[in-house]
Amino acid sequence: MGDTLRVFAPATVANVACGFDIFGFALEVPGDEIILRQKGDSVRVTTVTGDEGKLTLDSEKNVAAVSVQHLLNYLGEDRGFEIEVHKKMPLSSGLGSSAASSVGAVFGANLLLNEPLEVKELIPFAMEAERVACGSAHADNVAPALLGGFVLIRSYHPLEVVEVPVNLPLYCTILHPHVEILTKKARDILPKNVPLQDLVTQTGNASALIAALIQGDASLLEHALHDAIIEKVRGPLIPGFDKIKQAAIEAGALGCSISGSGPSIFALTLSENKAKQVGEAMQLACPEKSTLFVSKLNTEGPRVLT
Amino acid sequence: MGDTLRVFAPATVANVACGFDIFGFALEVPGDEIILRQKGDSVRVTTVTGDEGKLTLDSEKNVAAVSVQHLLNYLGEDRGFEIEVHKKMPLSSGLGSSAASSVGAVFGANLLLNEPLEVKELIPFAMEAERVACGSAHADNVAPALLGGFVLIRSYHPLEVVEVPVNLPLYCTILHPHVEILTKKARDILPKNVPLQDLVTQTGNASALIAALIQGDASLLEHALHDAIIEKVRGPLIPGFDKIKQAAIEAGALGCSISGSGPSIFALTLSENKAKQVGEAMQLACPEKSTLFVSKLNTEGPRVLT
Repeated sequence: MGDTLRVFAPATVANVACGFDIFGFALEVPGDEIILRQKGDSVRVTTVTGDEGKLTLDSEKNVAAVSVQHLLNYLGEDRGFEIEVHKKMPLSSGLGSSAASSVGAVFGANLLLNEPLEVKELIPFAMEAERVACGSAHADNVAPALLGGFVLIRSYHPLEVVEVPVNLPLYCTILHPHVEILTKKARDILPKNVPLQDLVTQTGNASALIAALIQGDASLLEHALHDAIIEKVRGPLIPGFDKIKQAAIEAGALGCSISGSGPSIFALTLSENKAKQVGEAMQLACPEKSTLFVSKLNTEGPRVLT
Repeated sequence: MGDTLRVFAPATVANVACGFDIFGFALEVPGDEIILRQKGDSVRVTTVTGDEGKLTLDSEKNVAAVSVQHLLNYLGEDRGFEIEVHKKMPLSSGLGSSAASSVGAVFGANLLLNEPLEVKELIPFAMEAERVACGSAHADNVAPALLGGFVLIRSYHPLEVVEVPVNLPLYCTILHPHVEILTKKARDILPKNVPLQDLVTQTGNASALIAALIQGDASLLEHALHDAIIEKVRGPLIPGFDKIKQAAIEAGALGCSISGSGPSIFALTLSENKAKQVGEAMQLACPEKSTLFVSKLNTEGPRVLT
């Protein structure tokens, strides 16, 4: 294994329309590259690139360092790490940028320590980094980033993460409009209460989405990919959201909604070709400058780069 | 086929803890027996037994007649039926008594008419009878009563019913305390709004319950069988509910909650023996006189009795 490692950690789509705070899946692109080196007796971030100067090197605030430090504390290890964070995905985009960095770092550190923990056991350390990044310890980006595939957070207290088999050849189109939505603002506008009827609608769709993925039922997935509660308050924060979504559906997407707290918008399809067509239609409908990603679902989570 | 038919139609458990208005499953016992005879040119209920005089023979109000009449109207048929309703399950018990009668009748009438419709297509006619019985056209009893097994109502508008494969050897214990809860009262006390956090909890459990059933994961099913929203307001309507539930769990039930709008209480287990033990414990903890049923999940729905 040596004492240096280069790790890729994936971007993720959280919420997935009807699974607010409980659903997430991993992408093959984009993602972060993390380089770890066992060295010294403390955890230090030596370099950050691709962040336009927005991220800190402070090891108490940089999520990559925070997740590794929590792992070391848990293990009672006093070894040190130097960490390079190479952002290869947009920040504050709703694609789990902080989760990718913390996951890549803690995954790599665990490998360099000769795997004292299983990958699934690393989730809480990356969640602690999420707490530093956005004020609450969410799992719907870090869990799919670590485990790959489609993930359901059954419960937060205690944490129970369910890996959901995906028996459909899903492709994801991501449109990232170049506007900024602060995660805090996106959370502040959430309704404190929801009508009981919307609960019925949302549990029906969320349950059906899980059945559709496991049973490979594309038609049921299409029917289930609706958000009765969150999209109507967050959609208006994204310029042109309704038109972009309509363009995605008209171009043949199974469904389209906000990725995480936005501004990125995801659409699901059953082929790479269709995913590209959907992306072109979304980009045409978007009034802002935007970046497009087309990706299969990432089934493996982070991986070592050689 | 002849022109007379005897049909058994099963009791059902709706809501199933975390699936308010969207989950239901069918039982092997108890259930209703319906006898249909093609005769005359109108739909008439000639006999009702086992109802302690509570049900009407009025063909515009008796659910068995209402569902058959809606089927005939849809088909443009003017043939008549005489219907006998033999209640072999408690009324107003939260076990889908009205659904059993309407389902048995419409299932039998469709057979006597040489199956112009598939069984699944009969759901809307039985739902119309539910509207007459309780003021709204719910599907979470009629759909599992007609289809058997475990059913998810993905959506009411349009109606989309998903049959969920159950890959666990589930047994259900039903305790029916001899107290009456009016469906209308049980609905009137429901919260109009629910905290967003409860939505997250409920969608997490409902989604996990579907994954658990399809994947045969008893441990996940046990974790998911919780109701964050409805049980706390309806439980207090049932004398001793908390103690009965605690007794069921201590006796080894995977989960225990209110069946439909109560007062019946259901518990799930993985063997007939355990189901009986759980039933004894529940009955001991129940301060009221009660009746116990132990049943496998009914996988076939209604059936013709010979």
